[in-house]
Amino acid sequence: MEKKETAKTRIIEASRALFSEVGFESTSVREIAKKASVNLASINYYFKSKKNLLAEIFLLNFKTFSECLDDLYERRTTWTIEEFSTEVFDLLDRRKEEFYSAFQIFFNDGVPLPSNLSGDSSSYSGPPGGETFKKVIDNNLGTTVEEWRKEWVMRTLFNNIVWEFVVLQTNYAKISEGSEINRKESLKRISNLCHCLVSGVKNDGINLSEVRYS
Amino acid sequence: MEKKETAKTRIIEASRALFSEVGFESTSVREIAKKASVNLASINYYFKSKKNLLAEIFLLNFKTFSECLDDLYERRTTWTIEEFSTEVFDLLDRRKEEFYSAFQIFFNDGVPLPSNLSGDSSSYSGPPGGETFKKVIDNNLGTTVEEWRKEWVMRTLFNNIVWEFVVLQTNYAKISEGSEINRKESLKRISNLCHCLVSGVKNDGINLSEVRYS
Repeated sequence: MEKKETAKTRIIEASRALFSEVGFESTSVREIAKKASVNLASINYYFKSKKNLLAEIFLLNFKTFSECLDDLYERRTTWTIEEFSTEVFDLLDRRKEEFYSAFQIFFNDGVPLPSNLSGDSSSYSGPPGGETFKKVIDNNLGTTVEEWRKEWVMRTLFNNIVWEFVVLQTNYAKISEGSEINRKESLKRISNLCHCLVSGVKNDGINLSEVRYS
Repeated sequence: MEKKETAKTRIIEASRALFSEVGFESTSVREIAKKASVNLASINYYFKSKKNLLAEIFLLNFKTFSECLDDLYERRTTWTIEEFSTEVFDLLDRRKEEFYSAFQIFFNDGVPLPSNLSGDSSSYSGPPGGETFKKVIDNNLGTTVEEWRKEWVMRTLFNNIVWEFVVLQTNYAKISEGSEINRKESLKRISNLCHCLVSGVKNDGINLSEVRYS
């Protein structure tokens, strides 16, 4: 049994390396087999197709990212929303090779992702590490702010942190050096958004519609 | 001269169709030439590489989207930020084949986009139709709100509208039908964000950092 798991792991690792080096389309199953030191049949046995492999890598990155946020959360007894958001951005940036590919996979409509993205048996459905990020929001906003408002703040911040990160990885950002597309400006925008969202969800004078998250 | 432009246009149209049907990687220059009824040499003459073609298609979509926002803006004498945001979302959704591919191109770090994305001689640097969207923000927020705050509101709304649109196109959204990933929930979130941002930038009690846009 252990030997089988090792082959599976080697296939995933080889694919991950090849997809990020030469791209998904340009990588053949034969090359993956060679790099992973397995035969073609075992790739077929474990994954059926190259696209399933991509989905598997996505789930692995999802899990890794969640675990990183857990570790981060444990490092301090108190986090402001702004501090934690900055750390999430920097985590993405530090491990960009891994995580940028995850977002590219997510936005590739050909990849068959499961509707339960966390890949485990829980019913959690949300961004990676979302439950942990939510704890930071809860600790800061308290119990008087409705649940859906806090969930919305968490997801909106998460999406915007990812957006800032992803834009920094584009070719456009690379050729626009010296422009507004840099870490410092990204963090200012994230911080501004924190302040507006927190103030907004606490303000009963603003008409917000209840949003559902399943 | 006109004949040359026609060949160029045919190449772009053929590429656009093939890239969205069978994907960028799987499309050969030979197939593009066949579909466009030109020879290989003229593709090479106009575009040098397949990636340049992708950049050209991106710029075309950028321009089309800008023009759509101009037309939209002209349709009414007054727009609330929320109404206009809804229309931008619906425009993306109505023409998803065109515009989704544009965002995929933008986030593909292999594509050589120019730093002046609008592709014309102006120095404008921002999202497609950003100048028009900004007019709606200006009309609603007035002259007492600082320029950078209005620019930040416009770009943040734009990014979030695009995010909501793009997520709806993912395979994840398709298999999560009946969940929170649908147009109605997207529009509620966009509307909530409008209200929080507008209230936030008008509130001197909130500490916002000035952000630069070049």
